[in-house]
Amino acid sequence: MTSTFDASSGVVSTGVSIFADALDHQAVDVTRVDWRPPMAGTEADLATVAMDPLRVEANEKALAAYLGVQGNLVDVAPASEVLGLQKGEFLHAGPPLSWENASGPMRGALLGAAALEGLVEDPEDAEALFASGSNVTLEPCHHRSAVGPMAGVVSPSMWMWVIEDPTDGRRTYCSLNEGLGKVLRYGAYAPEVLERLRWMSEVLGPALAAATRGSEPINVTSILGQMLQMGDEAHNRNRAGTLMVLRDLAPALVQSGLDSADVARVFSFIGGNDHFFLNLAMPACKLALDAARNIEGSTMVVAMARNGTEFGIQTAGTGDEWFTGPAQIAEGLFLGDYGPEDANPDIGDSAITETAGIGGFAMATAPAIVRFVGGTVPDALATTRRMNEITLGSNDRWSIPVLDFMGAPTGIDVTKVCRTSILPQINTGMAGAVAGTGQVGAGLVTPPANIFPKALAALAQRTRDRGRAG
Amino acid sequence: MTSTFDASSGVVSTGVSIFADALDHQAVDVTRVDWRPPMAGTEADLATVAMDPLRVEANEKALAAYLGVQGNLVDVAPASEVLGLQKGEFLHAGPPLSWENASGPMRGALLGAAALEGLVEDPEDAEALFASGSNVTLEPCHHRSAVGPMAGVVSPSMWMWVIEDPTDGRRTYCSLNEGLGKVLRYGAYAPEVLERLRWMSEVLGPALAAATRGSEPINVTSILGQMLQMGDEAHNRNRAGTLMVLRDLAPALVQSGLDSADVARVFSFIGGNDHFFLNLAMPACKLALDAARNIEGSTMVVAMARNGTEFGIQTAGTGDEWFTGPAQIAEGLFLGDYGPEDANPDIGDSAITETAGIGGFAMATAPAIVRFVGGTVPDALATTRRMNEITLGSNDRWSIPVLDFMGAPTGIDVTKVCRTSILPQINTGMAGAVAGTGQVGAGLVTPPANIFPKALAALAQRTRDRGRAG
Repeated sequence: MTSTFDASSGVVSTGVSIFADALDHQAVDVTRVDWRPPMAGTEADLATVAMDPLRVEANEKALAAYLGVQGNLVDVAPASEVLGLQKGEFLHAGPPLSWENASGPMRGALLGAAALEGLVEDPEDAEALFASGSNVTLEPCHHRSAVGPMAGVVSPSMWMWVIEDPTDGRRTYCSLNEGLGKVLRYGAYAPEVLERLRWMSEVLGPALAAATRGSEPINVTSILGQMLQMGDEAHNRNRAGTLMVLRDLAPALVQSGLDSADVARVFSFIGGNDHFFLNLAMPACKLALDAARNIEGSTMVVAMARNGTEFGIQTAGTGDEWFTGPAQIAEGLFLGDYGPEDANPDIGDSAITETAGIGGFAMATAPAIVRFVGGTVPDALATTRRMNEITLGSNDRWSIPVLDFMGAPTGIDVTKVCRTSILPQINTGMAGAVAGTGQVGAGLVTPPANIFPKALAALAQRTRDRGRAG
Repeated sequence: MTSTFDASSGVVSTGVSIFADALDHQAVDVTRVDWRPPMAGTEADLATVAMDPLRVEANEKALAAYLGVQGNLVDVAPASEVLGLQKGEFLHAGPPLSWENASGPMRGALLGAAALEGLVEDPEDAEALFASGSNVTLEPCHHRSAVGPMAGVVSPSMWMWVIEDPTDGRRTYCSLNEGLGKVLRYGAYAPEVLERLRWMSEVLGPALAAATRGSEPINVTSILGQMLQMGDEAHNRNRAGTLMVLRDLAPALVQSGLDSADVARVFSFIGGNDHFFLNLAMPACKLALDAARNIEGSTMVVAMARNGTEFGIQTAGTGDEWFTGPAQIAEGLFLGDYGPEDANPDIGDSAITETAGIGGFAMATAPAIVRFVGGTVPDALATTRRMNEITLGSNDRWSIPVLDFMGAPTGIDVTKVCRTSILPQINTGMAGAVAGTGQVGAGLVTPPANIFPKALAALAQRTRDRGRAG
């Protein structure tokens, strides 16, 4: 017979460090556990959702549905064609938004897009148009199976990547990446911004369409897995991914029959824009996460998105409802003379990468980016490990070499976020707050904490409603 | 006043662990230092060279000369043109070699090259030609400012990358990479091997020449720096480098005026061969290391190369003399049903990458390759740190992100190798021992230990000769 007292005893300390410190001073063996109290006011809802008989199985189903999807690049086509977008219809990043509440970069991007579509000559003339609300509509990209980085504005003439789930034919969409600096998605609308967008619609889009249609479907999910072995985290660093898609499209692009000077410019444009692949990573992440939507009882987050004013999340168990709070300002590094006072709050659908377990969740794969967003390599390793605390599982298809090929932490669980107070970590670019500015920096940001208790409350309400109905 | 005895005392233990273990058992605080005795018989030469009044400054000069070089890709042209290679002249990897002493893969590559050059119809008919020695000559690549991976056989019709030091116009050369599997450099000479080589001479070489001449010089040294941030160590993994040079050459390649089907095949060929960049990495490393040659008193290694029979090194302080010993068999993983008994001893000039501080010296940059050569991630980190023990400095242009951006360990010092018994770590492919086989695996290998005492003895002799002359 053995007694529990045969083993040497010690103390496990959680919460504030003062207790552990005191024990240390008394030479008592103490194991520190990183523990924080649940978010204030969530205790009752946590208890309700924890007892939901659907929860465990629903979350397993949601995670498995997400993990089961691989996205193929199958086409490139105008938004008017693949999304049925009409003149005057504009998509934008994040949860629903009105012109009145739109931030500077969102307004700037909408003004530029209105001029691009010929609704006005001078972008600034479109302010009255959007203020009047007549003949123009705003709708989230997410409501049309699309995602858009930063302002994420999509108008009918813009060409879209088309990503398809080969098992069920579902498709997601994203515009083509313009590059960095003064670009529409950061709220710039100067003549050179519109000129670039016109070239993208007239030359780049058709060239990529020819190349894509002339190639075998390109497995974007697989490229994402390779990127994580090549220093990309697929949000703020997409260099290897850009090179791989360029490689995969090159033979068909060369044989597209297009003018060789145009083809050469397409190669230069893509080769000169390390972020080009971001707009393929995002719809591939959305495609996989959308497979986990509408699973009653699941507490898994299926979208995180920001419109520059509000940050919103959607969960697998709450349909199309958005849970929103004020978008935060990122902490990080600024370009040139810009500083924190120049930055707009967090904006863009690109947090779909973190929702899928990469970007800020896979910082450890991209040590080179860590300094760019103002961190250190140990920070990056710690961040990836910390995200394990709030996720349902890991994605073995996307492994992190330096953490012994651990799968990316995947499937943010609203209950785990509320119980631990650990917020998802997002890598992001920063747009200038004033319309027309463009990018001012890059950094790290989290969602506003209050949106997770809101989502939890809705999940708890559904649990109670089902209990009563049952 | 303080006394040294105010501090708590402990024991520092070096060498065999039994002493430290004994102290541990007695609860004595012991610091273990990784120390091994010098290589047997080197004590006197180490003492002589250590006292060489030229040594410190000569090594500083050699390291600085090496670190000062950046190599530009400036041309692609046939070996007959840029190396003046005549029909019947063959270059090979490693130190000088006769046909009689040549290993299977070296013989296989020479047979294939003889057929490629039209000296014989059937490669196997060339055996008699090489055995007779009439109208054929063998010479190391290194003697012609060139390097060649594996067998490294170069014949006149093969096209060569041309890398140039823009400060002094020095040039180095390397053939174009054929891909993996059944390829000439691994000793295969089947009809498809020769057919691929003919296509490389007829289409690939001229296409790359047009692309290179139509592009700005491409800084290969800078690409190598980026590769280390992208999971390549530039010996066994060159995926990111291959993609970057493809990106850089693409616009000019598209506008070369060549047939678009040929251009498309060039893109497919390069895009399908993750090792393509190795043949750019190697001559860039040689270009930099050659700048450190012929510095009297320097104990820095400027070349490590293997001909499949012998492993040879050259040092900065000993001119063109080779110090050679038997090439070892790598330990690692085997393709298909191959095993250690099928492997030829270590072969190729590709250890020029380790001589320059990358490849096996920068394993920590390429965790994904670690498993391919049969190791673990902690092994890789430990290897890079261990190489610091035998190098003169580090290369800040080539930094290792996961080791907090430490520069690659650079400038192998013969005295440090002899004093510590730590041998340089090399990543390598393994060729089949039987001529015609091709690749059988990949793994880790070291030089034979005895070549370092040989080099040290020559350095000591020169020190003594100079002392007497003075």
